[in-house]
Amino acid sequence: MTVPTKILLDESDIPTHWYNIIPDLPAPPPPVLHPGTLEPVGPGDLAPLFPMDLILQEVSQDSYIEIPEPVRDIYRLWRPTPLYRAHRLEREIDTPARIYYKYEGASPAGSHKPNTAVAQAYYNAQAGVRKLTTETGAGQWGSALALACRMFGLECEVWQVAASFDQKPYRGSMMRTWGATIHSSPSEVTNAGQAILAKDPHSTGSLGIAISEAVEVAATNADVNYSLGSVLNHVLLHQTVIGQEAAAQLAKVDETPDVIIGCTGGGSNFSGLSYPFMREKLAGNINPTIRAVEPAACPSITKGEYRYDFGDAIGMTPLIKMHTLGHGFVPDPIHAGGLRYHGMSPLVSHIVELGLMEAEAIGQVECFEAALQFARTEGIIPAPEPTHAIAGALREANECRESGEEKVILIALCGHGHFDMAAYDTFLSGELHDYEYPSEAIAAALAEVPVVA
Amino acid sequence: MTVPTKILLDESDIPTHWYNIIPDLPAPPPPVLHPGTLEPVGPGDLAPLFPMDLILQEVSQDSYIEIPEPVRDIYRLWRPTPLYRAHRLEREIDTPARIYYKYEGASPAGSHKPNTAVAQAYYNAQAGVRKLTTETGAGQWGSALALACRMFGLECEVWQVAASFDQKPYRGSMMRTWGATIHSSPSEVTNAGQAILAKDPHSTGSLGIAISEAVEVAATNADVNYSLGSVLNHVLLHQTVIGQEAAAQLAKVDETPDVIIGCTGGGSNFSGLSYPFMREKLAGNINPTIRAVEPAACPSITKGEYRYDFGDAIGMTPLIKMHTLGHGFVPDPIHAGGLRYHGMSPLVSHIVELGLMEAEAIGQVECFEAALQFARTEGIIPAPEPTHAIAGALREANECRESGEEKVILIALCGHGHFDMAAYDTFLSGELHDYEYPSEAIAAALAEVPVVA
Repeated sequence: MTVPTKILLDESDIPTHWYNIIPDLPAPPPPVLHPGTLEPVGPGDLAPLFPMDLILQEVSQDSYIEIPEPVRDIYRLWRPTPLYRAHRLEREIDTPARIYYKYEGASPAGSHKPNTAVAQAYYNAQAGVRKLTTETGAGQWGSALALACRMFGLECEVWQVAASFDQKPYRGSMMRTWGATIHSSPSEVTNAGQAILAKDPHSTGSLGIAISEAVEVAATNADVNYSLGSVLNHVLLHQTVIGQEAAAQLAKVDETPDVIIGCTGGGSNFSGLSYPFMREKLAGNINPTIRAVEPAACPSITKGEYRYDFGDAIGMTPLIKMHTLGHGFVPDPIHAGGLRYHGMSPLVSHIVELGLMEAEAIGQVECFEAALQFARTEGIIPAPEPTHAIAGALREANECRESGEEKVILIALCGHGHFDMAAYDTFLSGELHDYEYPSEAIAAALAEVPVVA
Repeated sequence: MTVPTKILLDESDIPTHWYNIIPDLPAPPPPVLHPGTLEPVGPGDLAPLFPMDLILQEVSQDSYIEIPEPVRDIYRLWRPTPLYRAHRLEREIDTPARIYYKYEGASPAGSHKPNTAVAQAYYNAQAGVRKLTTETGAGQWGSALALACRMFGLECEVWQVAASFDQKPYRGSMMRTWGATIHSSPSEVTNAGQAILAKDPHSTGSLGIAISEAVEVAATNADVNYSLGSVLNHVLLHQTVIGQEAAAQLAKVDETPDVIIGCTGGGSNFSGLSYPFMREKLAGNINPTIRAVEPAACPSITKGEYRYDFGDAIGMTPLIKMHTLGHGFVPDPIHAGGLRYHGMSPLVSHIVELGLMEAEAIGQVECFEAALQFARTEGIIPAPEPTHAIAGALREANECRESGEEKVILIALCGHGHFDMAAYDTFLSGELHDYEYPSEAIAAALAEVPVVA
């Protein structure tokens, strides 16, 4: 069968349900704990921040949750996304492997993030919420939520880490174009921000600080909620449209993946692609290798400890069991800003512990080398985050050249790099470098993690 | 019939031929003249800059010219492009009109420009050319040619107007990512550039100077050719894949356009969408209004004179009969850099004179207001150039609301604005303004145009 360059689906093929992997797992994930009582967190604890529909999805035991029609209607603006066969890349590296990439950069915000942003905005609008707040680093998530809020008539207020706010001004322009209000964090508009600025008027901010500001505004206003772009179960759930579509697309060309590769920061893009295939793996129908690729500078799965830790940098959130480098660990400033998180989604971590997937860490120089080879054959310039998935795929494909194996490799290409070109400048000018493995910093951060029996 | 949000075609539906409108026109376009002899230019005059295949396409009398398979193979990376029904925009403005937009921003370079860049790179590679040179303003064309050259193993050298080189550095990053060499123009690497810099070391450049530099390198090196991104017949020809696809897509949903609207700078995007429909109009099968929208600050069709003038700013090129504001006219710095050209494609100009199409000029404030409404309903953030087409379509759709007419409006949405977000910043901060109609500057420039009997 001659496989086309792009395998497309009709709008009628947009999945009707999100897939929830939790009931299919051989063991349930450990509960999230209240930091004071160390008791499992209940729906009531989350109600000040999230609408009940999302809280129920967070703990749902249903395998499939119907996607509301108004959400599917917005998905139609860019979904189903194309699945590409990387014919030109395969020829360039002379591999017998067949490489497919699922491209989420086709969304207006340029990444997979709108898949959950639209769902979250919808449920909040249904609940009568007036405004959503959130934090953003490089800006992928903030722009996705800005788009989604506009579609459902919600206000959107974003706190962007000051360093990124200054370095990547055009992500802010995008958010404002869709009607969001954006603050450089720390800001003067919250108590948390004011406290930081009182101590350090020139603070360049951190994701932890930005979370504190966004949560403060949501927690202290009855008609304002908070929205998170990764890590939580309901966020991963919403991303499973990616993998369901990819499975249908591979079926159209009679292919079964041997290796599925995605990058992991908070885990939502990786989970979105892989869980629908993991379902088939759990059912014994297929047996692909499923592999997360994380940055060598922030190797939570491969070098972190699996234990209870805070989700944020300053210890305000509930305790979640996950692979963590310590909530106080500050990763080196690699260009893949979306992968600079001290922990991992608790659901991904649990699945790693169950032995259903594996992980490897790759340095950013190898990732950008892979990205350049990709851009120069396939055309698309990837965001820094999915360069990790591409680098992982090239390792596999190059091994296939040596072994002669005709593996089918499926990659999550979660976004384009149009707002990240400064990273390519750094690479092309020869100034990109890898960081030393931060063993002492990780050990120090892990030493500060509370011990939960 | 319920029309989906996106009307898609299969890869097998990529057109097999480009459509050449010239033999279908009731009168042939006037010849291009040698500036010294005032005799029509022959193929030999163009041979130092272009390969013979493109020269023959420039003067072809064939209605259809086959697209080489290697060109179609590259087109498959993003073609066929989607045709969208603007359901959400229609609801927002409460119009009975049905609005469709053909989106060329899906290409890796983010615009329609690769449709011709790939073809030009192919024919030059076939002719044994080692390198292509070109000029670029904002960078859409330079990045398209960089991508295309990489796909066929050609070197690519781009002279970018210094002002844009400094203001939009990320377009240069994109070109370098695809392997091109890029110079700020005026540069020290050409005689033309050196001469300008000797007079003005701080020159911010112009498209005319950049053309001179690119042409000089092509003309003085046997294995180097020059490439142009609009204006010429063969460039418009290559863009007709857009309109052929759009016609097939509208046919899938049983629609016939009543109004076809595209922005015009050099005319290639407008021609690409409209000529396949104009063919049907000439055959008496349909009768749509076909309308170009140009910037009020650079109104070549609506305010220029139809006469012979130079194609470049300094009078080096052959003389072409076109609507011109005078080759010495320098438009105000509107954000739609791709529409700041003193003339119009001679083929578009000829078709205007034949009465087959019309034109209107719209100021940039109205264009950005339209773009914001578009982005906030349809998601996609348009490049500054197609905001003119959107503004023109909104005028039509608003009239339909008043009249109750259910017109079918087809728009050319030729690119996204990811590299133009500074323009949105200016608009959102209330600092965008329209320019006075430059009547005195145009009159002065027209006074300098040579008189050809």
